[in-house]
Amino acid sequence: MIQQKEITLPRLGRGYHLITSLIEKELPQLPEKGLLHILVKHTSAGITLNENADPDVRTDFESFMNKMIPENDPVYIHTLEGSDDMPAHLKSSVIGAEITIPISHSRLNMGTWQGIYFCEFRNHSYGRRLVLTIYS
Amino acid sequence: MIQQKEITLPRLGRGYHLITSLIEKELPQLPEKGLLHILVKHTSAGITLNENADPDVRTDFESFMNKMIPENDPVYIHTLEGSDDMPAHLKSSVIGAEITIPISHSRLNMGTWQGIYFCEFRNHSYGRRLVLTIYS
Amino acid sequence: MIQQKEITLPRLGRGYHLITSLIEKELPQLPEKGLLHILVKHTSAGITLNENADPDVRTDFESFMNKMIPENDPVYIHTLEGSDDMPAHLKSSVIGAEITIPISHSRLNMGTWQGIYFCEFRNHSYGRRLVLTIYS
Repeated sequence: MIQQKEITLPRLGRGYHLITSLIEKELPQLPEKGLLHILVKHTSAGITLNENADPDVRTDFESFMNKMIPENDPVYIHTLEGSDDMPAHLKSSVIGAEITIPISHSRLNMGTWQGIYFCEFRNHSYGRRLVLTIYS
Repeated sequence: MIQQKEITLPRLGRGYHLITSLIEKELPQLPEKGLLHILVKHTSAGITLNENADPDVRTDFESFMNKMIPENDPVYIHTLEGSDDMPAHLKSSVIGAEITIPISHSRLNMGTWQGIYFCEFRNHSYGRRLVLTIYS
Repeated sequence: MIQQKEITLPRLGRGYHLITSLIEKELPQLPEKGLLHILVKHTSAGITLNENADPDVRTDFESFMNKMIPENDPVYIHTLEGSDDMPAHLKSSVIGAEITIPISHSRLNMGTWQGIYFCEFRNHSYGRRLVLTIYS
């Protein structure tokens, strides 16, 4: 069976945000076994699984990814939408804009230290849209 | 229900190519709700979602990824297959070789600005093979 | 139908390991058509598809990824868990911690040269846990 829901995130600033609880609140009663797929419907944001405990990890993600994929790199020709735009597109494909998470015993079956990160790569963004699909 | 199809892409040069329409033409009538999974059956190519409007974005992807993961890096020891080979393997795992896209109302449910990029990382390649799997 | 199994990998050292056969041995009789999803339940390890022939490719992955995402970068503030910890988190999101592989004719349908890499990013790790989900 497929269940599907489209949601709009609250406005989140540039950076990496732990959204596990927010996603869980949006989900219906989960099946005993299955998979949850999440798509971010944008090309300058991303979604990934990572450490859910120390917020410094999310700060380091922002700092290091900005260094690895910098603004104002001289190779960029797509520059009209701002210095944060082309790096945002690159980060979106390097981190990824969709993930799949197993469901077991009617819960998301991640590791103890895993959480869902929503990654906002633009300076100024509006409510980002996600498609949640559960298959069981 | 699972539907599956294997396709061969036309020869595309090194770079990032928007293949959304090409994929849509290969798909059967889509189910009301479901998911489409696409696997690239190669280790020197990739697939990702990104901006479907300005072709400069695809040019910048090629330029920047070549800078981030360069040819002839002194650490490489796998060099016999050409200077473009080892960077191609690395890019394939950094960008990814498979994606899942939700299907809603019998259409691929992506954002307005999202398209499917096929990423060819080698200088000389032949018809690349993809596995399309629809589950509904 | 959904089938699910959780497994513990044998202790593997830091680096990139070809685990295709190991995964295949853990799987039940595969359905005629379907998909296999694999989640790594950790935030300092990864999973990806790449070249299954020359072991030098795996060596180059380790060398190059250590250069692209180095230890002791001055931007890191999450440093208490060791110099290999923050780079491990970053690599886990850049490479990814979950993949989906199509099943056709009751076998994993990958390219001839594709294999499953388990990527251990920490110096000292214990038995890493994976969730295998088959849907058909």
